[in-house]
Amino acid sequence: MERDIAISSRVRVARNIKGRLFPASMSREEGLEVRTLVKAAIGDEFRFEYSDIDDLKNIDRTILVEKRLISKELLKRPEISSFLVDRQENTTIMVNEEDQIRIQSISGGLDLDSAWEKCNRVDDILEAKLEYAFDEEFGYLTSCPSNTGTGLRASVMVHLPILVGNGLVSAIMHSVGRAGITIRGIYGEGSKAVGNLFQISNQTTLGETEQESIEKLRNIVSQIIDRETQAREILCKSSRVELEDRVYRSLGTLTNARIITTDEAMRKLSDIRLGVDLGILKLDLDRIDRLTMEIQPGSVQKKIGDEVSEYRRDIKRAELLRAELI
Amino acid sequence: MERDIAISSRVRVARNIKGRLFPASMSREEGLEVRTLVKAAIGDEFRFEYSDIDDLKNIDRTILVEKRLISKELLKRPEISSFLVDRQENTTIMVNEEDQIRIQSISGGLDLDSAWEKCNRVDDILEAKLEYAFDEEFGYLTSCPSNTGTGLRASVMVHLPILVGNGLVSAIMHSVGRAGITIRGIYGEGSKAVGNLFQISNQTTLGETEQESIEKLRNIVSQIIDRETQAREILCKSSRVELEDRVYRSLGTLTNARIITTDEAMRKLSDIRLGVDLGILKLDLDRIDRLTMEIQPGSVQKKIGDEVSEYRRDIKRAELLRAELI
Repeated sequence: MERDIAISSRVRVARNIKGRLFPASMSREEGLEVRTLVKAAIGDEFRFEYSDIDDLKNIDRTILVEKRLISKELLKRPEISSFLVDRQENTTIMVNEEDQIRIQSISGGLDLDSAWEKCNRVDDILEAKLEYAFDEEFGYLTSCPSNTGTGLRASVMVHLPILVGNGLVSAIMHSVGRAGITIRGIYGEGSKAVGNLFQISNQTTLGETEQESIEKLRNIVSQIIDRETQAREILCKSSRVELEDRVYRSLGTLTNARIITTDEAMRKLSDIRLGVDLGILKLDLDRIDRLTMEIQPGSVQKKIGDEVSEYRRDIKRAELLRAELI
Repeated sequence: MERDIAISSRVRVARNIKGRLFPASMSREEGLEVRTLVKAAIGDEFRFEYSDIDDLKNIDRTILVEKRLISKELLKRPEISSFLVDRQENTTIMVNEEDQIRIQSISGGLDLDSAWEKCNRVDDILEAKLEYAFDEEFGYLTSCPSNTGTGLRASVMVHLPILVGNGLVSAIMHSVGRAGITIRGIYGEGSKAVGNLFQISNQTTLGETEQESIEKLRNIVSQIIDRETQAREILCKSSRVELEDRVYRSLGTLTNARIITTDEAMRKLSDIRLGVDLGILKLDLDRIDRLTMEIQPGSVQKKIGDEVSEYRRDIKRAELLRAELI
């Protein structure tokens, strides 16, 4: 499972209903019809909880994005978009995002099969009730051609502190790009990943099956995990004390700071995670995963209540971290 | 006493025996004669402990300098130099430093009178037995003309973290210079004081009495202390959280680092001292004073035993700090 470097796996499929416009072009009425159709199609299966975006406060929308339960794109047309989420918050159906229907499922570690299986089950249920826009030659039709075909995007969130430190991530990004795989920073842009967290995903949806896409991604992710693992082993041999110093200093900062930005907290939490992986610290990785989300601006804002300045959030964030880690 | 900003006061006088060469020019025999003369003159007074420099290991010499019990200059001609120190380690007589006799006494806080009184008492005892090189017009004759006259150098060690942060220290240095007062970094050179510690001292020994020199120094030190105090008050009002953040982060580093240089440790200890002064932390200032000496390279080296690399000392220093502060 390589739970330490691969944090989670995610699979999503993009679908649209035959004969209906894509969300960007549809009228409000058409949007509401799609919403109703999808809600009816899923019925009581999986006991999804349904929410319309326009019923949610801005802060709650932000938190859903920070928790990666929904995408930013879903917030573009709040008057027609909605989502359904299961109780474990592992599977989400977004309605009227870039496509009318996006089903995404997440599982822990490097476990694309489970994620794909859950995603596929929900897809089958919907497909039994709705006629998807599908072309014999191209496959599933989507708003953006880059999704046409399988409509599948599989991705793995990985933590690569040592490969980032070595400056090897950009070389890897370049080389996997040729295989139709992309590496992006999470909560950041491009190679400037905040907290050394990256999302590795397939870019190809045409000319290969879902299983082929998933298999290719898994192979490449495994190779990247191996490289991070090897780099860690080398560093542990050559610079164990320096690694311990880095990990403990970051713990010292997180347990003592009175003001801390999201970026700095993410960087320090990355060191803590590395410390746990290397057996330097004993801490629950799930707790670190949870903290990583809870220190994001929206979540911190929500804890304070009133809309406040970034400065007040930085103080509250430091409080939260001390409360969790001391 | 302003114990927080003024850490200690020190007075020293430079003396030479009439008709004898200064140490830089004397033969080994002459040096040994002076040593014997001074030792005999002090007798059992104050129950000084006597040591010849050439009986001491290099590491112990270094530690004496770090503890500021003796000066670096005393190590220049170890074959003829020695020193006497009282039990409290407050008063030292150095023999065959730049001058044949240098008596120095230290007291806590801003208390130049006590230091001067102790120094003066030892001086009187020696002067009763030895004929000093003295000129009716110039006063006490010394190796370097800058000490001729009273032979007195009074100094106060001050901790100026906020004036350093404001960049005001160099302006103050410049303005007190015109009054014959110098500000120097301790354990460092010029304005680049390690750990924000400075020594403020008189430069004039001609044309003014000992009391006048001391009085002038005390006035200027008091003014500088006032400026630091005011700057702290302003900062406490405008940026209390930032100050707390700075103090606690430094505590976090000192209690967590696995490798730490002397410079970094001094900077962090400066923050800790500031935190105690401002009531943010509760810690004994004497313990911080002691730590400030114990983390110096020689003292750390001594704890390890064998001669080791700077790297090993940096690891040991981190250990010592954790043991003291956690």
